[in-house]
Amino acid sequence: MNSSPDVGLGPVDLVALRLESGPVDLTSFATDATPGVDGRKAGEQALANLAPVLADLQERLWAARLAGSRQRVLVVLQGMDTSGKGGTIRKAFGLVDPRGLQITSFGAPTAEERARDFLWRIRPALPTPGHIGVFDRSHYEDVLIQRVRSFAPPEEIERRYGAIAEFEHDLAEDDVTVVKILLHISPEEQAERLRERLLNPAKHWKYDPSDLDDRALWDEYRTAHEIALERTDAEHAPWYVVPADRKWFRNLAVAQILAEALAGLDLDWPEADFDVAAQLARLDDVDISDS
Amino acid sequence: MNSSPDVGLGPVDLVALRLESGPVDLTSFATDATPGVDGRKAGEQALANLAPVLADLQERLWAARLAGSRQRVLVVLQGMDTSGKGGTIRKAFGLVDPRGLQITSFGAPTAEERARDFLWRIRPALPTPGHIGVFDRSHYEDVLIQRVRSFAPPEEIERRYGAIAEFEHDLAEDDVTVVKILLHISPEEQAERLRERLLNPAKHWKYDPSDLDDRALWDEYRTAHEIALERTDAEHAPWYVVPADRKWFRNLAVAQILAEALAGLDLDWPEADFDVAAQLARLDDVDISDS
Repeated sequence: MNSSPDVGLGPVDLVALRLESGPVDLTSFATDATPGVDGRKAGEQALANLAPVLADLQERLWAARLAGSRQRVLVVLQGMDTSGKGGTIRKAFGLVDPRGLQITSFGAPTAEERARDFLWRIRPALPTPGHIGVFDRSHYEDVLIQRVRSFAPPEEIERRYGAIAEFEHDLAEDDVTVVKILLHISPEEQAERLRERLLNPAKHWKYDPSDLDDRALWDEYRTAHEIALERTDAEHAPWYVVPADRKWFRNLAVAQILAEALAGLDLDWPEADFDVAAQLARLDDVDISDS
Repeated sequence: MNSSPDVGLGPVDLVALRLESGPVDLTSFATDATPGVDGRKAGEQALANLAPVLADLQERLWAARLAGSRQRVLVVLQGMDTSGKGGTIRKAFGLVDPRGLQITSFGAPTAEERARDFLWRIRPALPTPGHIGVFDRSHYEDVLIQRVRSFAPPEEIERRYGAIAEFEHDLAEDDVTVVKILLHISPEEQAERLRERLLNPAKHWKYDPSDLDDRALWDEYRTAHEIALERTDAEHAPWYVVPADRKWFRNLAVAQILAEALAGLDLDWPEADFDVAAQLARLDDVDISDS
């Protein structure tokens, strides 16, 4: 098991969301667990408490950039349809200054993208210094749907696990803090959410008939996730399996994972590159009255 | 006076924030006014009430894009240093899905940008369909600081007013709803905020000694703003002068201006392009149990 970055910014037991070493068995992760949090009310309060902490941490990252830091954070969000990637972005990432976010949603690759290496479209989406990058789906689709639906030959899929591990290793060397999150829901919860979308005309635009094709391959997707997690988990690019049947827990857990990642950078406020006392004196001198 | 887009989404009297026809006199706009809102508590409650309305409206814009709409919204934020452009982005624009925002902060132009027409760097930053673009400073800097500091010759500044009017007219024709906001603070409030920055080491990174050079030119900036507003106000690209001494009012007014702009698009949810009943039946057929 990798070391936990838990430094106590929230109640969620993040260690419980990390992988043991060896083969990954997703059935051993309950989708409705709430480790460390005693109920919805406590969870919502914890998220409210975390909001200003997260805003402060994000501002430190932003400020550090002005002082020459190249640090940035990349959060990879994966999960089956309806697992709540969008809701997480609104409710957890929505807690920080939107100027500090660089969010990229990866859909089916275009013809041009398919003609290139699978990482070709990923690289330009990486966060720039001072930013929190969020991948709403990611290069992991290239070993998930592409494996399950046989969109790429087995030897190419096999090659990609190593390519991803190397890619993420290089990111860590390049001051990118990588955190990967699987939003883990049960098939029953997915059925409920798909039904809700179908019964509400305001949600039809979120529904795609191919969602049911993927749903029919639930076990194959679970296996593909297990292999991907096992082969790409690393201390410098850890996977978290976030129980996502309960939206309030999912939001809190993701916000806390982000906060811990930012806190781990241990960023001080940049020092002033001007004479503070002289500026205060000049401020008093520059007397303006709205004439 | 242009017609008001006020459709009653909040208590702020937006008509009071619009320009009369003819010369603009910014001293006639109080920087601490709160038209329509009776105190901070009422204002904060109104913003809380507006949040879900705004989120719904933004989601409609986002969804419309999937149905082929090219509609987008561009909000131009201008204001003197410390007028609260950043705070507005966090507190008003932070209420919508960050995936739907495209925020661009315009600093001093680079050498390459200076070698081109002033709109050259603006065009690529325009929002794409379904998005809310926010300009944190904008092409208006090219007739504000550039005029006050004589960074461009008078005849070029003069040309720019017309170029901006034409540019924004073209945007309106291209399904871009343009709204322009001047965050209007008093020089006394600015002094207070600059002093706060100087006295708090966590805010030194936000301070730039050149802020005081601009402050010393307060009257010249006011005149430059008055000319810019007068010459570029249009029904399809209206200016709002938002009193910004009180942050709670500023946040509410901007959120309401954004909400009214979105509501003005009158967007319905896209209709389903699939057979809802058939999908519901298939959902029941695809029986998965987490094995």
